Amino acid sequence: MRIDRLEAFSDGVYAILITILVLEFSVPEYQVGHLMERVLTQWPIMFAYVISFVYVGAIWLFHHDFFQTLKYTSMELNVINLVVLFSVTLIDYPTALVAQALMERNVKDMRFSFIYYELIAMFISVTFAVLYSYVRKHPELTHRNDHQQKIYADIKMDPLISVSIYGVAVIITIFSPWWGLLVLVLGIIYHFIAYIRLGSRMQKTIRLE
Amino acid sequence: MRIDRLEAFSDGVYAILITILVLEFSVPEYQVGHLMERVLTQWPIMFAYVISFVYVGAIWLFHHDFFQTLKYTSMELNVINLVVLFSVTLIDYPTALVAQALMERNVKDMRFSFIYYELIAMFISVTFAVLYSYVRKHPELTHRNDHQQKIYADIKMDPLISVSIYGVAVIITIFSPWWGLLVLVLGIIYHFIAYIRLGSRMQKTIRLE
Amino acid sequence: MRIDRLEAFSDGVYAILITILVLEFSVPEYQVGHLMERVLTQWPIMFAYVISFVYVGAIWLFHHDFFQTLKYTSMELNVINLVVLFSVTLIDYPTALVAQALMERNVKDMRFSFIYYELIAMFISVTFAVLYSYVRKHPELTHRNDHQQKIYADIKMDPLISVSIYGVAVIITIFSPWWGLLVLVLGIIYHFIAYIRLGSRMQKTIRLE
Amino acid sequence: MRIDRLEAFSDGVYAILITILVLEFSVPEYQVGHLMERVLTQWPIMFAYVISFVYVGAIWLFHHDFFQTLKYTSMELNVINLVVLFSVTLIDYPTALVAQALMERNVKDMRFSFIYYELIAMFISVTFAVLYSYVRKHPELTHRNDHQQKIYADIKMDPLISVSIYGVAVIITIFSPWWGLLVLVLGIIYHFIAYIRLGSRMQKTIRLE
Repeated sequence: MRIDRLEAFSDGVYAILITILVLEFSVPEYQVGHLMERVLTQWPIMFAYVISFVYVGAIWLFHHDFFQTLKYTSMELNVINLVVLFSVTLIDYPTALVAQALMERNVKDMRFSFIYYELIAMFISVTFAVLYSYVRKHPELTHRNDHQQKIYADIKMDPLISVSIYGVAVIITIFSPWWGLLVLVLGIIYHFIAYIRLGSRMQKTIRLE
Repeated sequence: MRIDRLEAFSDGVYAILITILVLEFSVPEYQVGHLMERVLTQWPIMFAYVISFVYVGAIWLFHHDFFQTLKYTSMELNVINLVVLFSVTLIDYPTALVAQALMERNVKDMRFSFIYYELIAMFISVTFAVLYSYVRKHPELTHRNDHQQKIYADIKMDPLISVSIYGVAVIITIFSPWWGLLVLVLGIIYHFIAYIRLGSRMQKTIRLE
Repeated sequence: MRIDRLEAFSDGVYAILITILVLEFSVPEYQVGHLMERVLTQWPIMFAYVISFVYVGAIWLFHHDFFQTLKYTSMELNVINLVVLFSVTLIDYPTALVAQALMERNVKDMRFSFIYYELIAMFISVTFAVLYSYVRKHPELTHRNDHQQKIYADIKMDPLISVSIYGVAVIITIFSPWWGLLVLVLGIIYHFIAYIRLGSRMQKTIRLE
Repeated sequence: MRIDRLEAFSDGVYAILITILVLEFSVPEYQVGHLMERVLTQWPIMFAYVISFVYVGAIWLFHHDFFQTLKYTSMELNVINLVVLFSVTLIDYPTALVAQALMERNVKDMRFSFIYYELIAMFISVTFAVLYSYVRKHPELTHRNDHQQKIYADIKMDPLISVSIYGVAVIITIFSPWWGLLVLVLGIIYHFIAYIRLGSRMQKTIRLE
């Protein structure tokens, strides 16, 4: 089966998800003449938005480059891709909860919302691990060239590293939400670095051919 | 007429529909320090979300595989496809009602919201029955090969089976909402199984060619 | 310039517009145990939703078939298409106002919301008149065949007929909102019939080639 | 790497962004029989909507024409494009703030919301400057012809002119919000004129080939 509609549908879901995140921003109740002060207290919404945009953006970049190595889709790949998309759509709500908790700055609420976000991030990485593993085992779906198999081998551990980072973030968050948040942010930065590595490799591969 | 824009538009509608379902999740009113307890009471939103994501996801998978057998679209197919999309967009609201009713746990409200969802599910299956029947009668739109005609014959009864399952769900819900809900969930699982059957067959067909 | 991204972007806007119309449905405030009674009072939302879905759906169908006759886009066509999309996005808000006015059933408010809807509908038809006229004068953008020129000639008057119908609807609404609503609904049904005529012709054309 | 999915994803984000702007329109609290008066006080929402639709529309037109000169994407271009999209999604919230401030007409709140909008507009122009500069330095991604290099040279200064216009708008807004708003609107009109210049040139180029 052709891969193009799978890509189009996934692009649609990513595009919508990354865009409706802006709906979190809404004009607050404010005293006339004091709009600025009120909007400035919303900085956690901007913070959470940036984090989630970078996160979903990095996931899309991975999806984009990874699917370029594929030629066909299969029934199983369709289902796995749907589970990947499901996991990514779940990030929207904890993004809002993190913003809310950061505005109130209550330790218990921060701990809960950060851990929620981190657990979803772990789940996303697990679905990517399944996706990578499935494609590695089904070379008949790919363009079948050696460079690709090498790429698959190179990125094999990426999702597991992510799961570990977010796992560590959960544990640290239990003791200290602020340090946990730092590890979470580092995890998302790791995604970006991992993408840059994948992207560079893919470009080299294309030049070699 | 080319089929690609019909697919692109449909993918767009499915992608948006499946993604805006997350908008049901919204930060509840809560007492500072008790965010977790409040969010946990929202489990019915997660439950309804998972059910509807699986449902719309399975419908997209069907749409995806089914349209791969088509080469052209016609004026009638454009209209039928629009009716299919219309029926699917209607699932969003009963999803929210089911979540709400499950949070309040009032039997009358649960009965109403479950039956609403089940009636929409019946309607969706009816539109798919019309779609399948139309394509079966218009081989000039397809890639014209024997395997496809066999696939059309094989999936012919699927929508009617779904209509029956949801019909039974309605009747059971009248007497017992909880058992009705179970049948509804089974109906959605049936969609997934039916897709896996269709997907496997299509892959075999492609290999045979 | 290639026409495909123009189509993709337009499909995106139509798909989103037709889908976010469902966001008008929202769980009402209700007394536990009386969800059904409250939801049933929302029938005007369903009515307005069906009308607008049929309307935007018919517009998409036109857009779809019409752009199949085009091979290239131009700077002017890009801008005209954007104005067409702008006019269509405006239908969302009067849809909500019509639903609201029909729930309250106040004659003055109904008159206002119906006329708002009808004026936007007139504006949409005017933008289509501009689109049709531009393409008729720029055969270098089309697949250049005689059947197409005939199609353009055939549909030339459609937008003007629509403008007239909605103009009549405005005048009637001033005196009687209910009769005005009827004319508005007839106008939307006219779109559908006009599409069926266009669609049939285009299919014949394709067969002739 | 192929450029098509990058275009599809970007089209998705633009289409969603331009369409969810309509969600700013919502039925106001009103006294039955006085819906019209209340809706008319919402004119700033319509004003802000038109401005932002024209703005995002012009940006899409640029993106559309500019990417037609490209044949491949690279890891860096993927990332830069994501930053461009990020900057554009930020325009949604200040649009709502501008509408709100114009409804209340408090000078301090107007100043704040206009400056917010202008700063985001500056940021968007900066991201386009980076995009243009990157592509100019990477001819291996383009269709490699002399006309294109000429186009790149011609539009090189456009983002810097925009940044200057919005910078001037910020300074003027500090002293007089109304005059600042005028400069902001002129800046957006400048985008449109700049697009019409680019579009005309690209059409000539295509004819020359």
